[in-house]
Amino acid sequence: MPSILSPRDLEFLLHEWLDVAALTTRPRFAEHSRETFDAFLEVSARIAEREFAPHNRRNDLEEPTFDGERVHIIPEVAAALAAFADTGLLAGSMDAEAGGLQLPHVVARACFAWFQAANIATSAYPLLTMANANLLLTHAAPEHVARFVTPMLEGRFSGTMCLSEPQAGSSLSDVTTRATPAGDGSYRVTGGKMWISGGDHELSETIVHLVLARVAGAPAGVKGLSLFIVPKHLVGDDGRVGERNGVELAGLNHKMGFRGTTNAVLSFTDSTAYLVGEEGRGLAYMFQMMNEARIGVGAGAVALGYTGYLHALAYARERLQGRPVSGKDPAAPPVPIVRHPDVRRMLLASKTYVEGGLALVLYAARLVDEQETGDAAAAAEAALLLDVLTPIVKAWPSQWCLLANDHAIQVHGGYGYTREYPVEQFYRDNRLNPIHEGTDGIQGLDLLGRKVVMRDGAGLKLLVRTMREAAGRAPAELAGYAELLTAGCERLVEVTGKLWSDGDPERALANSTAYLNAAGHLVIAWMWMEQATAAADRPGAFYDGKRLAARYFFTHELPRTTAWFELLESGDTLLADLDDECL
Amino acid sequence: MPSILSPRDLEFLLHEWLDVAALTTRPRFAEHSRETFDAFLEVSARIAEREFAPHNRRNDLEEPTFDGERVHIIPEVAAALAAFADTGLLAGSMDAEAGGLQLPHVVARACFAWFQAANIATSAYPLLTMANANLLLTHAAPEHVARFVTPMLEGRFSGTMCLSEPQAGSSLSDVTTRATPAGDGSYRVTGGKMWISGGDHELSETIVHLVLARVAGAPAGVKGLSLFIVPKHLVGDDGRVGERNGVELAGLNHKMGFRGTTNAVLSFTDSTAYLVGEEGRGLAYMFQMMNEARIGVGAGAVALGYTGYLHALAYARERLQGRPVSGKDPAAPPVPIVRHPDVRRMLLASKTYVEGGLALVLYAARLVDEQETGDAAAAAEAALLLDVLTPIVKAWPSQWCLLANDHAIQVHGGYGYTREYPVEQFYRDNRLNPIHEGTDGIQGLDLLGRKVVMRDGAGLKLLVRTMREAAGRAPAELAGYAELLTAGCERLVEVTGKLWSDGDPERALANSTAYLNAAGHLVIAWMWMEQATAAADRPGAFYDGKRLAARYFFTHELPRTTAWFELLESGDTLLADLDDECL
Repeated sequence: MPSILSPRDLEFLLHEWLDVAALTTRPRFAEHSRETFDAFLEVSARIAEREFAPHNRRNDLEEPTFDGERVHIIPEVAAALAAFADTGLLAGSMDAEAGGLQLPHVVARACFAWFQAANIATSAYPLLTMANANLLLTHAAPEHVARFVTPMLEGRFSGTMCLSEPQAGSSLSDVTTRATPAGDGSYRVTGGKMWISGGDHELSETIVHLVLARVAGAPAGVKGLSLFIVPKHLVGDDGRVGERNGVELAGLNHKMGFRGTTNAVLSFTDSTAYLVGEEGRGLAYMFQMMNEARIGVGAGAVALGYTGYLHALAYARERLQGRPVSGKDPAAPPVPIVRHPDVRRMLLASKTYVEGGLALVLYAARLVDEQETGDAAAAAEAALLLDVLTPIVKAWPSQWCLLANDHAIQVHGGYGYTREYPVEQFYRDNRLNPIHEGTDGIQGLDLLGRKVVMRDGAGLKLLVRTMREAAGRAPAELAGYAELLTAGCERLVEVTGKLWSDGDPERALANSTAYLNAAGHLVIAWMWMEQATAAADRPGAFYDGKRLAARYFFTHELPRTTAWFELLESGDTLLADLDDECL
Repeated sequence: MPSILSPRDLEFLLHEWLDVAALTTRPRFAEHSRETFDAFLEVSARIAEREFAPHNRRNDLEEPTFDGERVHIIPEVAAALAAFADTGLLAGSMDAEAGGLQLPHVVARACFAWFQAANIATSAYPLLTMANANLLLTHAAPEHVARFVTPMLEGRFSGTMCLSEPQAGSSLSDVTTRATPAGDGSYRVTGGKMWISGGDHELSETIVHLVLARVAGAPAGVKGLSLFIVPKHLVGDDGRVGERNGVELAGLNHKMGFRGTTNAVLSFTDSTAYLVGEEGRGLAYMFQMMNEARIGVGAGAVALGYTGYLHALAYARERLQGRPVSGKDPAAPPVPIVRHPDVRRMLLASKTYVEGGLALVLYAARLVDEQETGDAAAAAEAALLLDVLTPIVKAWPSQWCLLANDHAIQVHGGYGYTREYPVEQFYRDNRLNPIHEGTDGIQGLDLLGRKVVMRDGAGLKLLVRTMREAAGRAPAELAGYAELLTAGCERLVEVTGKLWSDGDPERALANSTAYLNAAGHLVIAWMWMEQATAAADRPGAFYDGKRLAARYFFTHELPRTTAWFELLESGDTLLADLDDECL
């Protein structure tokens, strides 16, 4: 079996590039050292391989079922979650006073990638629980933290986010679930929610739903949304799990992949609910969880792409088929297919996607650490840069690491198309990622419609400055790539200005996905500039591989941006203007 | 339910563009008329909708099983195949004297697309049977035609092609199945074959396998391959199906999609076999079937993409979500998602893929008719053009109409990712097409390594001349597209010459997939030039749609070729030269 992730690559990215050990000079991480970081990475790899990977296929073949009363899930899932809770990583990056390990986010993110690579469906339960707990730690009243968050971090409760409704998917302003004050400080919530990952199961003592709802008299649109804790069971002041709350499972969705994670339609009827923070600020709070979940989705997409790439690479080294195109002597022995240029194309492209994507995800996590532990100026910059990068961190891996999974099928040929090999499942699992937590189309609108124009373009300026600085640090042998990166930065700034020159969002956003594509490829080129710089002057196959991948990305991938930029520069508004009766 | 294909588009392509009724002036089609053509199209639509479409999902959920003795298939499949046989279309394009309808290939291809769109897995059985029968009608001895082909065309027998072996997938020169003369004119065949679509089932009285094998003493490589008829049961001179031949089902593969078509590992042990044609010419004969199957694969990929597009379009017109980006008044009613530019992007791109792909597939079928019924010069030209186009007809729809299926999932959002909607199955089904009948990588090698250089580049010259002529026929309002098409032709010729300038296949073929991509997009641009020309001056939404799609393809899609051409022109041989230890 090939490894599910590359420890060597994680070592390179965390230590040789991001120098995470330097974080231990900061007070928050003073108890840690490179050794403790590595120990958590190793335990993650071990638990992921032993407890998560082995049931990945069974989770797919025997997906959760609902018999009208209970949800049935294969027992390996609960065992894996218990093993995960035992590592302490449910509170990996959280405060010690909340029971956390105070690991840097960048290390916790790398640890969690092991579980996502091993079994994306099982890992989705703790992903959501952690993001839910993080939100509540920031915004909830202390009594609710004690009652709901502490058990989540101990692995006894789990958490969800309940935003979508049948008529309100991408458009949260259409949420109709309503909340009524009960007079005792609590509320009663009634409405239907759907697409709730982990929305029902018996893997934990209870489930803590975070529900967007509208209090009577609230304004229309997203400004009228408030956020509520709605537990599946009532939980007493003593922390005891009591009777069922008014939350019913209306049904499970049956998905193309990602089958091990229940996906629920939930019905709330006069459910006891507790307001988080203030009324009318629900979406603002939820964005904290959503942004964390978006980075988690990007990380999951990378992890699935990465494990698919490693499987394809191992297969390509073993599978003998055909001969080089020069010298087709049928008496000569066949060669491993890794010798064929088109197989190499798929492998090398995939390598640039998954290693570039992993670099971006870890860079984003490092920004979270800076935001939380840097000095005021650095923290503000990190927050701004993370804000502008988030749609790319979510959407780029969802698109390109999915393509790595597609390539992994193709490298395996007919075998890859069968369920006897794991790569087709990786593809199906990863196909969710361009859809949930805001479709890739929504990410394009977020990037071009909001992130690069907010605060007079401060986010875009910062991103471009950061990329230019990276180009400026490049050693002489990378000068050609540095020029390409710098030219791309100029083009991005120019085209952004041009698109918004008349301030008409219909025209500006007509090709928002092309903009997301171009900005995304430019950002990943930057990630390859960073990696090639970190690898400079170091000999050996591993560093040669980084140089090779950087070369491939700059020469075979970055040229894709030409067509996107040209379309954007042309000012074409065909997609905004067309008569859809002609479709 | 949306329609599974567009009768209006078929009418446009067949009658308004290709003028298939004009074929009835040729002796072979003299019994036919536009009315008989349309009648067969209508019966195809009806039988496809009534007998094929309804069990498409069940075929996926309850895939064929093998209990060690028998293969079990849901009963709807046999009923559908009987209904198909009743139409006479199993011999749709064949000679009347063989029991055929003597329909033009172009009409038969269009008819069959209905069945592929309705249920690709069930339609694979007759697809293979027809291609098998066609090969035998050309190359087999009359007694074998009577014994095997006639029952196939009556729907009593079915056919397969048995090429691959575990160690010989893309590399047929490594086939080791051996054949020994039995002394009575027949042979005995022993060996293992795999990836055999329709390789075992009880849908027909017996199965006629066409098997590539090596006679003792034959040279190594493909020149040592001979072709044999190996029936599952012995068939007497009287046509009666007798006892089992030495052909055993070793197991079924379990696929990601296309599940309704059994995919078998077959074991041949001293099987009674009949030589087709001459020894050592097996692969040459098989190429007739393979070329037909490759066009069939392209047609299937188009059909799946097309039906996915129609489902996505119908959904996008109905699903209300969000508001235009200008004027986001939350009190305003939500709009159908077809109003959002990014949804339009996916729909319009898909329209260009599936309608462009369908045009290409029908154009190729029309070339088969020319090859068979044109005058000598026209027939020779048609054969040459078809030869050069075949890798594109196979690979382009396999890649881009698959992308249409991907877009169809994305347009549906979360719903598209569930098995409650059909689009995820269309994707999974279509994902086979870039793999079987020669992977897309093999098609790239075939195009650049053989088709455009054979006969001193005559095929490429003819293709380019044909595309230039189309550009020359364009009306004035399409002059801009005509220029782009002409410029693309020049670039294709130049780059081909440059790639082969030093005659080194390793260097020439280092980026063969980029070449296939560039040539493919250029050919589809030509198809849009043809359609836009045929639609010129005609008013109405249907023709406006053709104009819109042509505009989109020339302005949003054709620019993709820039990156591919630039890579090819750069002479980059990274993929040929790299050290694969660095991957």
